[in-house]
Amino acid sequence: MSAAEAEAHFVISDLMSEYSELIDQDRLEDWIELFTEDAVYRIIPRENVEQNLPAPIILCTNKNMLRDRITSLRSANEYNLHYDRHIVGSLRTKRQSADAWTATASYAVFQTTLEGQSRLFSTGRYEDRIRRENGAYRFAEKVVIVDTFSVPTLLATPL
Amino acid sequence: MSAAEAEAHFVISDLMSEYSELIDQDRLEDWIELFTEDAVYRIIPRENVEQNLPAPIILCTNKNMLRDRITSLRSANEYNLHYDRHIVGSLRTKRQSADAWTATASYAVFQTTLEGQSRLFSTGRYEDRIRRENGAYRFAEKVVIVDTFSVPTLLATPL
Amino acid sequence: MSAAEAEAHFVISDLMSEYSELIDQDRLEDWIELFTEDAVYRIIPRENVEQNLPAPIILCTNKNMLRDRITSLRSANEYNLHYDRHIVGSLRTKRQSADAWTATASYAVFQTTLEGQSRLFSTGRYEDRIRRENGAYRFAEKVVIVDTFSVPTLLATPL
Repeated sequence: MSAAEAEAHFVISDLMSEYSELIDQDRLEDWIELFTEDAVYRIIPRENVEQNLPAPIILCTNKNMLRDRITSLRSANEYNLHYDRHIVGSLRTKRQSADAWTATASYAVFQTTLEGQSRLFSTGRYEDRIRRENGAYRFAEKVVIVDTFSVPTLLATPL
Repeated sequence: MSAAEAEAHFVISDLMSEYSELIDQDRLEDWIELFTEDAVYRIIPRENVEQNLPAPIILCTNKNMLRDRITSLRSANEYNLHYDRHIVGSLRTKRQSADAWTATASYAVFQTTLEGQSRLFSTGRYEDRIRRENGAYRFAEKVVIVDTFSVPTLLATPL
Repeated sequence: MSAAEAEAHFVISDLMSEYSELIDQDRLEDWIELFTEDAVYRIIPRENVEQNLPAPIILCTNKNMLRDRITSLRSANEYNLHYDRHIVGSLRTKRQSADAWTATASYAVFQTTLEGQSRLFSTGRYEDRIRRENGAYRFAEKVVIVDTFSVPTLLATPL
Protein backbone atom coordinates (compact mmCIF):
# COMPACT_ATOMS: atom_id res chain seq x y z
CA MET A 1 0.00 0.00 0.00
CA SER A 2 1.56 3.28 -1.09
CA ALA A 3 0.85 6.56 0.68
CA ALA A 4 -1.05 7.71 -2.44
CA GLU A 5 -3.24 4.59 -2.32
CA ALA A 6 -3.98 5.09 1.39
CA GLU A 7 -4.88 8.72 0.76
CA ALA A 8 -7.23 7.85 -2.13
CA HIS A 9 -8.98 5.27 0.08
CA PHE A 10 -9.36 7.85 2.82
CA VAL A 11 -10.80 10.50 0.49
CA ILE A 12 -13.18 8.04 -1.20
CA SER A 13 -14.37 6.87 2.22
CA ASP A 14 -15.14 10.48 3.08
CA LEU A 15 -17.00 10.90 -0.24
CA MET A 16 -19.12 7.82 0.52
CA SER A 17 -19.96 9.21 3.97
CA GLU A 18 -20.87 12.60 2.53
CA TYR A 19 -23.08 10.89 -0.05
CA SER A 20 -25.30 9.24 2.55
CA GLU A 21 -25.11 12.18 4.96
CA LEU A 22 -26.54 14.53 2.31
CA ILE A 23 -29.39 12.14 1.48
CA ASP A 24 -30.20 11.60 5.16
CA GLN A 25 -30.25 15.38 5.72
CA ASP A 26 -32.47 15.87 2.66
CA ARG A 27 -29.82 18.11 1.03
CA LEU A 28 -30.33 16.57 -2.39
CA GLU A 29 -29.21 19.64 -4.34
CA ASP A 30 -25.79 19.34 -2.66
CA TRP A 31 -25.86 15.58 -3.15
CA ILE A 32 -25.98 16.06 -6.95
CA GLU A 33 -22.67 17.90 -6.80
CA LEU A 34 -20.93 14.67 -5.79
CA PHE A 35 -21.37 13.39 -9.36
CA THR A 36 -19.42 14.12 -12.55
CA GLU A 37 -21.36 15.78 -15.41
CA ASP A 38 -21.45 12.49 -17.36
CA ALA A 39 -22.28 10.38 -14.32
CA VAL A 40 -24.47 7.29 -14.55
CA TYR A 41 -26.83 6.53 -11.64
CA ARG A 42 -28.60 3.18 -11.66
CA ILE A 43 -30.74 1.19 -9.24
CA ILE A 44 -30.98 -2.49 -10.17
CA PRO A 45 -32.61 -5.38 -8.31
CA ARG A 46 -30.23 -8.16 -7.38
CA GLU A 47 -32.36 -10.75 -9.17
CA ASN A 48 -31.71 -8.95 -12.47
CA VAL A 49 -27.96 -8.78 -11.89
CA GLU A 50 -27.79 -12.52 -11.25
CA GLN A 51 -29.87 -13.35 -14.34
CA ASN A 52 -27.96 -10.87 -16.52
CA LEU A 53 -31.09 -8.81 -17.05
CA PRO A 54 -29.73 -5.30 -16.71
CA ALA A 55 -33.16 -3.56 -16.64
CA PRO A 56 -32.83 -0.92 -13.93
CA ILE A 57 -35.56 0.43 -11.64
CA ILE A 58 -34.05 3.88 -12.09
CA LEU A 59 -31.55 5.03 -14.70
CA CYS A 60 -29.98 8.47 -15.08
CA THR A 61 -27.23 8.68 -17.67
CA ASN A 62 -25.96 12.17 -16.89
CA LYS A 63 -26.07 14.80 -14.18
CA ASN A 64 -28.90 16.78 -15.82
CA MET A 65 -31.18 13.77 -15.53
CA LEU A 66 -30.33 13.64 -11.83
CA ARG A 67 -31.15 17.36 -11.53
CA ASP A 68 -34.54 16.80 -13.22
CA ARG A 69 -35.26 13.95 -10.88
CA ILE A 70 -34.58 16.04 -7.79
CA THR A 71 -36.61 18.96 -9.18
CA SER A 72 -39.66 16.78 -9.74
CA LEU A 73 -39.16 15.17 -6.35
CA ARG A 74 -39.22 18.63 -4.76
CA SER A 75 -42.43 19.68 -6.53
CA ALA A 76 -44.18 16.36 -5.88
CA ASN A 77 -43.38 16.22 -2.18
CA GLU A 78 -43.77 19.60 -0.59
CA TYR A 79 -43.14 18.04 2.78
CA ASN A 80 -40.71 15.27 3.49
CA LEU A 81 -42.74 12.28 4.64
CA HIS A 82 -39.97 10.28 6.23
CA TYR A 83 -36.38 10.44 7.36
CA ASP A 84 -33.71 8.21 5.84
CA ARG A 85 -30.76 6.75 7.71
CA HIS A 86 -27.96 5.04 5.80
CA ILE A 87 -25.53 2.69 7.48
CA VAL A 88 -22.71 1.89 5.09
CA GLY A 89 -20.42 -1.03 5.89
CA SER A 90 -16.71 -1.25 5.27
CA LEU A 91 -15.49 0.05 1.95
CA ARG A 92 -13.25 -1.60 -0.62
CA THR A 93 -11.45 0.52 -3.19
CA LYS A 94 -9.29 -0.47 -6.15
CA ARG A 95 -7.30 1.86 -8.35
CA GLN A 96 -8.14 1.29 -12.04
CA SER A 97 -6.00 4.03 -13.58
CA ALA A 98 -4.19 7.19 -12.51
CA ASP A 99 -7.46 9.02 -11.73
CA ALA A 100 -10.06 6.26 -11.53
CA TRP A 101 -11.10 3.82 -8.81
CA THR A 102 -13.81 1.27 -8.21
CA ALA A 103 -15.46 1.32 -4.79
CA THR A 104 -17.82 -1.24 -3.26
CA ALA A 105 -19.72 -1.33 0.04
CA SER A 106 -22.86 -2.85 1.53
CA TYR A 107 -25.58 -0.61 2.92
CA ALA A 108 -28.74 -0.75 4.99
CA VAL A 109 -31.26 2.10 4.85
CA PHE A 110 -33.76 2.63 7.65
CA GLN A 111 -36.74 4.96 7.42
CA THR A 112 -38.51 6.79 10.20
CA THR A 113 -42.03 8.08 9.59
CA LEU A 114 -43.33 11.39 10.88
CA GLU A 115 -45.22 9.37 13.50
CA GLY A 116 -41.87 8.21 14.82
CA GLN A 117 -41.76 4.60 13.65
CA SER A 118 -38.38 3.36 12.36
CA ARG A 119 -38.03 0.31 10.14
CA LEU A 120 -35.70 -1.39 7.71
CA PHE A 121 -36.29 0.04 4.24
CA SER A 122 -33.66 -1.40 1.91
CA THR A 123 -30.45 -3.41 1.99
CA GLY A 124 -28.02 -3.84 -0.86
CA ARG A 125 -24.68 -2.98 -2.28
CA TYR A 126 -22.92 -0.09 -4.04
CA GLU A 127 -20.68 -0.83 -7.02
CA ASP A 128 -19.25 2.54 -7.95
CA ARG A 129 -16.69 4.15 -10.18
CA ILE A 130 -14.92 7.21 -8.80
CA ARG A 131 -13.02 9.73 -10.90
CA ARG A 132 -10.70 12.52 -9.87
CA GLU A 133 -11.25 15.74 -11.81
CA ASN A 134 -9.29 18.89 -10.99
CA GLY A 135 -8.31 17.35 -7.69
CA ALA A 136 -11.89 16.50 -6.60
CA TYR A 137 -13.16 12.92 -6.27
CA ARG A 138 -16.61 12.42 -7.79
CA PHE A 139 -18.96 9.55 -8.67
CA ALA A 140 -18.63 8.76 -12.39
CA GLU A 141 -21.00 5.83 -11.87
CA LYS A 142 -23.17 4.85 -8.94
CA VAL A 143 -24.80 1.43 -9.18
CA VAL A 144 -27.16 0.53 -6.34
CA ILE A 145 -27.95 -3.17 -6.31
CA VAL A 146 -31.03 -3.53 -4.11
CA ASP A 147 -31.56 -6.93 -2.49
CA THR A 148 -35.18 -7.03 -3.58
CA PHE A 149 -37.35 -5.82 -6.46
CA SER A 150 -40.13 -5.34 -3.92
CA VAL A 151 -39.45 -1.92 -2.46
CA PRO A 152 -41.99 -1.35 0.32
CA THR A 153 -42.83 2.25 -0.57
CA LEU A 154 -42.34 4.42 -3.58
CA LEU A 155 -38.64 5.07 -4.21
CA ALA A 156 -38.87 8.79 -3.58
CA THR A 157 -35.46 9.78 -2.27
CA PRO A 158 -32.29 8.25 -3.75
CA LEU A 159 -30.62 5.24 -2.15
CA MET B 1 -3.79 14.28 4.03
CA SER B 2 -0.79 14.48 6.33
CA ALA B 3 0.47 11.49 8.30
CA ALA B 4 -0.68 13.27 11.48
CA GLU B 5 -4.20 13.67 10.07
CA ALA B 6 -4.36 10.01 9.06
CA GLU B 7 -3.19 8.94 12.51
CA ALA B 8 -5.78 11.12 14.26
CA HIS B 9 -8.54 9.62 12.08
CA PHE B 10 -7.30 6.12 12.92
CA VAL B 11 -7.22 6.79 16.66
CA ILE B 12 -10.64 8.50 16.69
CA SER B 13 -12.08 5.56 14.74
CA ASP B 14 -10.74 3.24 17.42
CA LEU B 15 -12.24 5.46 20.15
CA MET B 16 -15.65 5.31 18.42
CA SER B 17 -15.43 1.50 18.24
CA GLU B 18 -14.44 1.26 21.88
CA TYR B 19 -17.37 3.53 22.82
CA SER B 20 -19.97 1.17 21.35
CA GLU B 21 -18.09 -1.97 22.37
CA LEU B 22 -18.17 -0.92 26.02
CA ILE B 23 -21.90 -0.15 25.92
CA ASP B 24 -22.66 -3.43 24.15
CA GLN B 25 -20.65 -5.33 26.78
CA ASP B 26 -22.40 -3.46 29.61
CA ARG B 27 -19.06 -2.10 30.83
CA LEU B 28 -20.49 1.35 31.52
CA GLU B 29 -18.00 2.27 34.24
CA ASP B 30 -15.20 1.89 31.68
CA TRP B 31 -17.31 3.71 29.08
CA ILE B 32 -17.37 6.84 31.29
CA GLU B 33 -13.58 6.99 31.09
CA LEU B 34 -13.80 7.81 27.38
CA PHE B 35 -15.06 11.31 28.30
CA THR B 36 -13.20 14.41 29.48
CA GLU B 37 -14.09 15.76 32.94
CA ASP B 38 -16.04 18.66 31.41
CA ALA B 39 -17.73 16.51 28.77
CA VAL B 40 -21.24 17.22 27.55
CA TYR B 41 -23.48 14.26 26.68
CA ARG B 42 -26.77 15.00 24.95
CA ILE B 43 -29.50 12.96 23.30
CA ILE B 44 -31.75 15.07 21.06
CA PRO B 45 -34.57 14.03 18.74
CA ARG B 46 -34.02 14.93 15.11
CA GLU B 47 -37.29 16.85 15.00
CA ASN B 48 -35.97 19.28 17.60
CA VAL B 49 -32.69 19.80 15.75
CA GLU B 50 -34.53 20.68 12.54
CA GLN B 51 -36.88 23.08 14.31
CA ASN B 52 -34.05 24.65 16.33
CA LEU B 53 -35.59 23.45 19.56
CA PRO B 54 -32.56 22.27 21.45
CA ALA B 55 -34.48 20.56 24.29
CA PRO B 56 -32.64 17.28 24.86
CA ILE B 57 -34.08 13.97 26.05
CA ILE B 58 -30.98 13.52 28.17
CA LEU B 59 -28.40 16.11 29.12
CA CYS B 60 -25.26 15.64 31.20
CA THR B 61 -22.97 18.65 31.32
CA ASN B 62 -19.99 17.04 33.02
CA LYS B 63 -18.51 13.65 33.78
CA ASN B 64 -19.90 13.53 37.32
CA MET B 65 -23.43 13.71 35.95
CA LEU B 66 -22.59 10.75 33.72
CA ARG B 67 -21.25 8.88 36.77
CA ASP B 68 -24.47 9.58 38.70
CA ARG B 69 -26.51 8.37 35.78
CA ILE B 70 -24.64 5.06 35.59
CA THR B 71 -24.84 4.63 39.38
CA SER B 72 -28.61 5.03 39.38
CA LEU B 73 -28.88 2.78 36.35
CA ARG B 74 -26.99 0.08 38.26
CA SER B 75 -29.19 0.33 41.34
CA ALA B 76 -32.43 0.47 39.33
CA ASN B 77 -31.64 -2.49 37.11
CA GLU B 78 -30.05 -5.25 39.11
CA TYR B 79 -30.18 -7.47 36.06
CA ASN B 80 -29.61 -6.35 32.52
CA LEU B 81 -32.85 -6.90 30.64
CA HIS B 82 -31.50 -6.76 27.12
CA TYR B 83 -28.35 -6.76 25.06
CA ASP B 84 -27.42 -3.80 22.88
CA ARG B 85 -25.63 -4.04 19.56
CA HIS B 86 -24.29 -0.90 17.88
CA ILE B 87 -23.44 -0.81 14.21
CA VAL B 88 -21.62 2.41 13.43
CA GLY B 89 -21.22 3.46 9.80
CA SER B 90 -18.27 5.18 8.25
CA LEU B 91 -16.71 7.99 10.23
CA ARG B 92 -15.86 11.53 9.16
CA THR B 93 -13.34 13.53 11.15
CA LYS B 94 -12.22 17.14 10.81
CA ARG B 95 -9.42 18.81 12.69
CA GLN B 96 -10.61 22.02 14.39
CA SER B 97 -7.42 23.00 16.19
CA ALA B 98 -4.15 21.41 17.26
CA ASP B 99 -5.85 19.10 19.76
CA ALA B 100 -9.52 19.15 18.78
CA TRP B 101 -11.57 17.38 16.12
CA THR B 102 -15.19 16.98 15.14
CA ALA B 103 -16.36 13.47 14.33
CA THR B 104 -19.65 12.38 12.76
CA ALA B 105 -21.11 8.95 12.00
CA SER B 106 -24.49 7.26 11.59
CA TYR B 107 -25.49 4.42 13.88
CA ALA B 108 -28.11 1.71 14.24
CA VAL B 109 -28.69 0.04 17.61
CA PHE B 110 -30.36 -3.36 17.84
CA GLN B 111 -31.61 -4.89 21.07
CA THR B 112 -31.95 -8.53 21.96
CA THR B 113 -34.24 -9.50 24.81
CA LEU B 114 -33.47 -12.25 27.32
CA GLU B 115 -36.00 -14.38 25.42
CA GLY B 116 -33.75 -14.13 22.39
CA GLN B 117 -35.69 -11.72 20.16
CA SER B 118 -33.60 -9.14 18.28
CA ARG B 119 -35.07 -5.95 16.85
CA LEU B 120 -34.16 -2.49 15.65
CA PHE B 121 -34.07 -0.14 18.64
CA SER B 122 -32.76 3.22 17.43
CA THR B 123 -31.15 4.85 14.41
CA GLY B 124 -29.48 8.23 14.33
CA ARG B 125 -26.29 10.15 14.11
CA TYR B 126 -23.36 11.14 16.33
CA GLU B 127 -22.03 14.70 16.14
CA ASP B 128 -19.07 14.71 18.47
CA ARG B 129 -16.16 16.83 19.57
CA ILE B 130 -12.95 14.99 20.43
CA ARG B 131 -10.11 16.47 22.46
CA ARG B 132 -6.60 15.21 23.01
CA GLU B 133 -5.43 15.57 26.62
CA ASN B 134 -2.03 14.26 27.73
CA GLY B 135 -1.86 12.19 24.57
CA ALA B 136 -5.27 10.50 25.04
CA TYR B 137 -8.24 11.17 22.75
CA ARG B 138 -11.50 11.66 24.65
CA PHE B 139 -15.07 12.83 23.97
CA ALA B 140 -15.43 16.49 24.97
CA GLU B 141 -18.97 16.43 23.59
CA LYS B 142 -21.16 13.56 22.46
CA VAL B 143 -24.38 14.56 20.74
CA VAL B 144 -26.70 11.70 19.81
CA ILE B 145 -29.37 12.81 17.36
CA VAL B 146 -32.03 10.10 17.45
CA ASP B 147 -34.23 9.78 14.37
CA THR B 148 -37.37 9.70 16.47
CA PHE B 149 -38.67 11.17 19.71
CA SER B 150 -40.61 7.95 20.15
CA VAL B 151 -38.12 5.60 21.75
CA PRO B 152 -39.82 2.18 22.02
CA THR B 153 -38.63 1.40 25.54
CA LEU B 154 -37.22 3.39 28.37
CA LEU B 155 -33.79 4.77 27.47
CA ALA B 156 -31.94 2.75 30.09
CA THR B 157 -28.46 2.24 28.66
CA PRO B 158 -26.70 5.06 26.76
CA LEU B 159 -26.84 5.24 22.98
CA MET C 1 0.88 4.31 14.65
CA SER C 2 3.65 3.09 12.36
CA ALA C 3 3.19 2.83 8.59
CA ALA C 4 3.36 -0.98 8.96
CA GLU C 5 0.56 -0.92 11.53
CA ALA C 6 -1.60 1.29 9.31
CA GLU C 7 -1.02 -1.01 6.35
CA ALA C 8 -1.94 -4.12 8.35
CA HIS C 9 -5.16 -2.45 9.51
CA PHE C 10 -5.97 -1.54 5.91
CA VAL C 11 -5.34 -5.07 4.61
CA ILE C 12 -7.30 -6.72 7.45
CA SER C 13 -10.20 -4.33 6.82
CA ASP C 14 -10.18 -5.45 3.18
CA LEU C 15 -10.10 -9.11 4.29
CA MET C 16 -13.14 -8.53 6.53
CA SER C 17 -15.01 -6.89 3.64
CA GLU C 18 -14.13 -9.73 1.29
CA TYR C 19 -15.31 -12.24 3.90
CA SER C 20 -18.84 -10.85 4.00
CA GLU C 21 -18.91 -10.02 0.29
CA LEU C 22 -18.22 -13.66 -0.61
CA ILE C 23 -20.94 -14.97 1.74
CA ASP C 24 -23.45 -12.40 0.44
CA GLN C 25 -22.65 -13.41 -3.16
CA ASP C 26 -22.97 -17.10 -2.27
CA ARG C 27 -19.36 -17.73 -3.34
CA LEU C 28 -18.66 -20.03 -0.40
CA GLU C 29 -15.93 -22.03 -2.13
CA ASP C 30 -13.91 -18.81 -2.49
CA TRP C 31 -14.84 -17.83 1.07
CA ILE C 32 -13.07 -20.95 2.42
CA GLU C 33 -9.83 -19.72 0.89
CA LEU C 34 -9.76 -16.82 3.36
CA PHE C 35 -8.89 -19.29 6.15
CA THR C 36 -5.58 -20.92 7.09
CA GLU C 37 -5.41 -24.76 6.87
CA ASP C 38 -5.57 -25.05 10.68
CA ALA C 39 -8.27 -22.42 11.07
CA VAL C 40 -10.91 -22.64 13.78
CA TYR C 41 -14.43 -21.42 12.97
CA ARG C 42 -16.89 -21.15 15.84
CA ILE C 43 -20.37 -19.73 16.34
CA ILE C 44 -21.23 -19.20 20.02
CA PRO C 45 -24.29 -17.59 21.61
CA ARG C 46 -23.53 -14.57 23.75
CA GLU C 47 -25.25 -16.12 26.76
CA ASN C 48 -22.68 -18.93 26.74
CA VAL C 49 -19.75 -16.54 26.52
CA GLU C 50 -20.99 -14.57 29.52
CA GLN C 51 -21.57 -17.71 31.60
CA ASN C 52 -18.24 -19.25 30.53
CA LEU C 53 -20.02 -22.12 28.81
CA PRO C 54 -18.01 -22.43 25.63
CA ALA C 55 -20.38 -24.87 23.87
CA PRO C 56 -20.59 -23.62 20.30
CA ILE C 57 -23.54 -23.87 17.90
CA ILE C 58 -21.07 -24.66 15.15
CA LEU C 59 -17.43 -25.71 15.48
CA CYS C 60 -14.95 -26.45 12.70
CA THR C 61 -11.39 -27.01 13.89
CA ASN C 62 -9.66 -27.02 10.50
CA LYS C 63 -10.22 -26.00 6.91
CA ASN C 64 -11.27 -29.50 5.78
CA MET C 65 -14.21 -29.39 8.16
CA LEU C 66 -15.22 -26.09 6.60
CA ARG C 67 -14.96 -27.67 3.13
CA ASP C 68 -17.19 -30.58 4.24
CA ARG C 69 -19.71 -28.15 5.62
CA ILE C 70 -19.92 -26.21 2.37
CA THR C 71 -20.14 -29.44 0.34
CA SER C 72 -23.09 -30.71 2.36
CA LEU C 73 -24.69 -27.27 2.22
CA ARG C 74 -24.47 -27.39 -1.58
CA SER C 75 -26.04 -30.85 -1.84
CA ALA C 76 -28.78 -30.08 0.69
CA ASN C 77 -29.84 -26.79 -0.86
CA GLU C 78 -29.92 -27.04 -4.62
CA TYR C 79 -31.40 -23.57 -4.78
CA ASN C 80 -30.47 -20.68 -2.57
CA LEU C 81 -33.57 -19.81 -0.57
CA HIS C 82 -32.53 -16.36 0.58
CA TYR C 83 -29.98 -13.63 0.11
CA ASP C 84 -27.70 -12.53 2.92
CA ARG C 85 -26.52 -8.99 3.49
CA HIS C 86 -23.78 -8.29 6.04
CA ILE C 87 -23.21 -4.84 7.44
CA VAL C 88 -19.97 -4.82 9.42
CA GLY C 89 -19.26 -1.90 11.72
CA SER C 90 -15.94 -0.29 12.42
CA LEU C 91 -13.01 -2.63 12.89
CA ARG C 92 -10.44 -2.73 15.67
CA THR C 93 -7.12 -4.49 15.11
CA LYS C 94 -4.26 -5.21 17.48
CA ARG C 95 -0.91 -6.66 16.57
CA GLN C 96 -0.07 -9.69 18.76
CA SER C 97 3.23 -10.72 17.18
CA ALA C 98 5.18 -10.11 13.97
CA ASP C 99 2.62 -11.95 11.83
CA ALA C 100 -0.48 -12.18 14.02
CA TRP C 101 -3.31 -9.78 14.85
CA THR C 102 -6.60 -9.85 16.68
CA ALA C 103 -9.53 -8.17 14.95
CA THR C 104 -12.97 -7.33 16.36
CA ALA C 105 -16.09 -5.83 14.78
CA SER C 106 -19.86 -5.83 15.26
CA TYR C 107 -22.12 -7.08 12.49
CA ALA C 108 -25.77 -7.17 11.47
CA VAL C 109 -26.98 -9.69 8.89
CA PHE C 110 -30.21 -9.11 6.98
CA GLN C 111 -31.92 -11.76 4.88
CA THR C 112 -34.14 -11.30 1.87
CA THR C 113 -36.43 -14.13 0.84
CA LEU C 114 -37.15 -15.09 -2.77
CA GLU C 115 -40.53 -13.36 -2.31
CA GLY C 116 -38.66 -10.13 -1.72
CA GLN C 117 -39.08 -9.63 2.03
CA SER C 118 -36.03 -8.32 3.89
CA ARG C 119 -35.62 -8.67 7.64
CA LEU C 120 -33.04 -8.63 10.39
CA PHE C 121 -31.54 -12.10 10.73
CA SER C 122 -28.69 -11.90 13.23
CA THR C 123 -26.60 -9.38 15.14
CA GLY C 124 -23.39 -10.07 16.96
CA ARG C 125 -19.68 -9.66 17.06
CA TYR C 126 -16.57 -11.11 15.45
CA GLU C 127 -13.54 -11.88 17.61
CA ASP C 128 -10.92 -13.06 15.16
CA ARG C 129 -7.27 -13.96 14.91
CA ILE C 130 -5.52 -13.09 11.66
CA ARG C 131 -2.24 -14.61 10.53
CA ARG C 132 0.07 -13.59 7.71
CA GLU C 133 1.42 -16.56 5.76
CA ASN C 134 3.62 -16.05 2.69
CA GLY C 135 2.48 -12.45 2.53
CA ALA C 136 -1.26 -13.26 2.60
CA TYR C 137 -3.52 -12.34 5.54
CA ARG C 138 -5.89 -15.18 6.51
CA PHE C 139 -8.28 -16.04 9.34
CA ALA C 140 -6.56 -18.38 11.79
CA GLU C 141 -9.63 -18.19 14.00
CA LYS C 142 -13.08 -16.78 13.38
CA VAL C 143 -15.34 -16.57 16.40
CA VAL C 144 -18.88 -15.37 15.75
CA ILE C 145 -20.65 -14.40 18.96
CA VAL C 146 -24.34 -14.25 18.08
CA ASP C 147 -26.54 -12.06 20.29
CA THR C 148 -29.11 -14.79 20.69
CA PHE C 149 -29.24 -18.57 20.88
CA SER C 150 -32.59 -18.36 19.13
CA VAL C 151 -31.68 -18.16 15.46
CA PRO C 152 -34.93 -17.63 13.52
CA THR C 153 -34.17 -20.08 10.70
CA LEU C 154 -31.77 -22.91 10.25
CA LEU C 155 -28.18 -21.64 10.14
CA ALA C 156 -27.57 -22.67 6.55
CA THR C 157 -25.01 -20.18 5.27
CA PRO C 158 -22.12 -19.03 7.47
CA LEU C 159 -22.33 -15.81 9.46
